[in-house]
Amino acid sequence: MSIERVCVVGAGTIGSLIAGHLASQVEVSILTRRDEHAAALNENGLRILGKSDLLATVVASADPSQLPDFDLAIIATKTTGVEAGISGLAGRCPEAAVMTVQNGLGSEEIVRRHGDWQIISGVTFISGIRHSDAVIEYELDTETWMGPYAGTETPLELAQAAGELFLASGLNAEVLPDLLPAQWSKLIFNAAVNGTAALTELPHVAAFAKREQPSDLGHFVYDLIAEGKAAAAGAGVELHDDPWEMNRLAVSRGESDEGEYAHPPSMLEDVLAHRPTEVDAITGALVREAERVGVPVPLNTAVYRLIKAKEESWKLPNRKIQAEPSR
Amino acid sequence: MSIERVCVVGAGTIGSLIAGHLASQVEVSILTRRDEHAAALNENGLRILGKSDLLATVVASADPSQLPDFDLAIIATKTTGVEAGISGLAGRCPEAAVMTVQNGLGSEEIVRRHGDWQIISGVTFISGIRHSDAVIEYELDTETWMGPYAGTETPLELAQAAGELFLASGLNAEVLPDLLPAQWSKLIFNAAVNGTAALTELPHVAAFAKREQPSDLGHFVYDLIAEGKAAAAGAGVELHDDPWEMNRLAVSRGESDEGEYAHPPSMLEDVLAHRPTEVDAITGALVREAERVGVPVPLNTAVYRLIKAKEESWKLPNRKIQAEPSR
Repeated sequence: MSIERVCVVGAGTIGSLIAGHLASQVEVSILTRRDEHAAALNENGLRILGKSDLLATVVASADPSQLPDFDLAIIATKTTGVEAGISGLAGRCPEAAVMTVQNGLGSEEIVRRHGDWQIISGVTFISGIRHSDAVIEYELDTETWMGPYAGTETPLELAQAAGELFLASGLNAEVLPDLLPAQWSKLIFNAAVNGTAALTELPHVAAFAKREQPSDLGHFVYDLIAEGKAAAAGAGVELHDDPWEMNRLAVSRGESDEGEYAHPPSMLEDVLAHRPTEVDAITGALVREAERVGVPVPLNTAVYRLIKAKEESWKLPNRKIQAEPSR
Repeated sequence: MSIERVCVVGAGTIGSLIAGHLASQVEVSILTRRDEHAAALNENGLRILGKSDLLATVVASADPSQLPDFDLAIIATKTTGVEAGISGLAGRCPEAAVMTVQNGLGSEEIVRRHGDWQIISGVTFISGIRHSDAVIEYELDTETWMGPYAGTETPLELAQAAGELFLASGLNAEVLPDLLPAQWSKLIFNAAVNGTAALTELPHVAAFAKREQPSDLGHFVYDLIAEGKAAAAGAGVELHDDPWEMNRLAVSRGESDEGEYAHPPSMLEDVLAHRPTEVDAITGALVREAERVGVPVPLNTAVYRLIKAKEESWKLPNRKIQAEPSR
C-alpha cells in the first residue's frame, strides 16, 4: 500500500496542520469551504509556524470536482462538517482509503454512507492557532492515533502506511490495531473538558483538576469522567488512557508552558462565537452509548441538555436583557 | 404595633417598588449605595409606572446616619448586599422590626449579627424593569409572603401589621405563621430556574418546562427540582407550593403575556454583566442544607460548581480566545 496523493478535507487548524506537514512527503490537495480560502492557499502556499517551520505547496479548491485523485482522504472538518465534506467525494477514487480524525464518535458511519472506501479511524491531539487562511501555528505537537475502523476489513497495514507517512512528515503518530479504546478515552475526556469549558467559559485551566474545597470544579470534571468510565466498562471497552490523567496532564502542561493562558477547548471557541458546537458528537454520543448499554450518566446528560439549550439561546430574536447597576 | 416610618435598604428594582408603594401610607426613607442615586430620589421623588402609577416622596441617603428613625426596616438588597446594608443600621432603633426579602436562605442570620431587632422573614415574587434611578416599571404584581423569623420570638401580629401595610399600599401580600415552607419552595424554584438560566443564558422561557424529547431542558429543571424536594423532605419541611408547578406557571405566564419575551432571572442578568451572582445564597444554600440532612443533590451541586467556576472565568486577565471562521 503506497500513499502518494492525499486529499485533506477541511482546512481549519487541524486540517491545515496535517496538510502542511504531509506535503513534505506526498502531493496534497485541500478541499476548503470558501473559494477565497482555496485561492489564498494556491497563491501563497500553506505556512506552518511554531513547533514546525514549513511552507507547503498544495492544490486547493472549494469545488471537490476540481481536486485531483487521491490514495488517502483525511476528513479534518469538525463533526458538524463531515457530512458536507465527504459528500463532495462520493463516487471518487473507490480504491482510496478515508481517515477520520473528529472528536466524539460516529464520523466513520457518516463516511460509510457516501462510499465503500476502506476507513481508518483516527484520534488526534494536535492543536494550533490560526493566524490566517494560509498561516497556522503548530502549538501542541501531540500524537495522532490511528487504526482500522473497528468491525470492518480495513487491513492494519493500511493504517500503518498512514502512520508512517505522518511520522515521516514530522507529525507524531501511533498505530493501534483497535482504536476503540483510544476513541473512548478521548470521548470521555472531551465530553468532560469541552462540556465544562462550554458551560463555565473557562479555558482548560488548573481548576479543571482541583479537588480541594467542596465547591471546586475538579470534583465535577472527575464525576463526569467517572460516569464515562462506567459507560465504557458497560460497553466492554478497556480504555487506552485514563481520561482523568489526560485531564491532569493537560492542565499541568498548560500552566507550565504559558502561565495563565490555557488552550481554549474547541467547544468553548464555538460558544463564544455563537456557532453550533460538537456537543451531539461528543457528549451526545457518550450519553447515547451509555443508554444503549444501560449505564446511567446523569451529569453528562445534564451537560448535554444545558449546551443544547445554550445553542438555542443564540436564536432568540431579542434578548432584551439589560445589565442594570447592582443594588 | 403601629408602623409609621419605614426604611428601605437598597433601591434596586425590588427596593424601589416596595418603597414607592409604601410611601402612599407611611413615611419612607431609602438607603442607597450611591450618592447620586439618593440625590435623584430626593429631587424628583420615586416614580412607579406599569401595574401602578405613583409618584412617591421619599428621603434618601447613601449615608445611613443621615436617615430618620424607623419602625420597620426592609432589607431589599441582593443577598450579596445584605451585610453592607444592615451594618449601616447597627445600633439604630432597637425597638424596630427588620424584614428580609432576599432570595435563598440566610439573610436573617446576617441581620441578627448586627442587632437584636425582631425579624420578619419575607419572600417576594414581584418584579420590575428599572428605567432609571428614580423611575421603575412594576411588571409582575405577584405576592410577597412574610412571617415571623422561624425559631424566634417575633410575634405573628408584627408580620400581620407589615402585611396590612403592604396591602393598603397596593402591594399583594400574604402573612404566614411559618414562612419556612414558602422559603423552601422559592429556594428550590430559584436554584433550578436561576441556575439553569445562568448556565444556558436563556431567560425563563417555555423550554424550562418542556419534557418531550430526551434532550429537552425541562428534564434537567425537573430533576433539579426533584432533588430540592427530596432535600426539603429530609429537612422535615412540607413545601408551601410545588416548585415545578411554580416553574410551569411562570413560563406559561411569560409566553402568553409577551410572546418570545420572558423575564430574565436575576442570576442571568448578573452573568451577562459579569457581576458576582447570588449562587451562594441560592444553590449554595440548598446544597448545604441537603448535605446537613444527608440528602444527595448531585445536579444542584454540579450547578453550584459550574456557576462558581463561571464567576472565576471573568477574572482571567486575558481570555485570548479568538472566534475563528468555522472549518
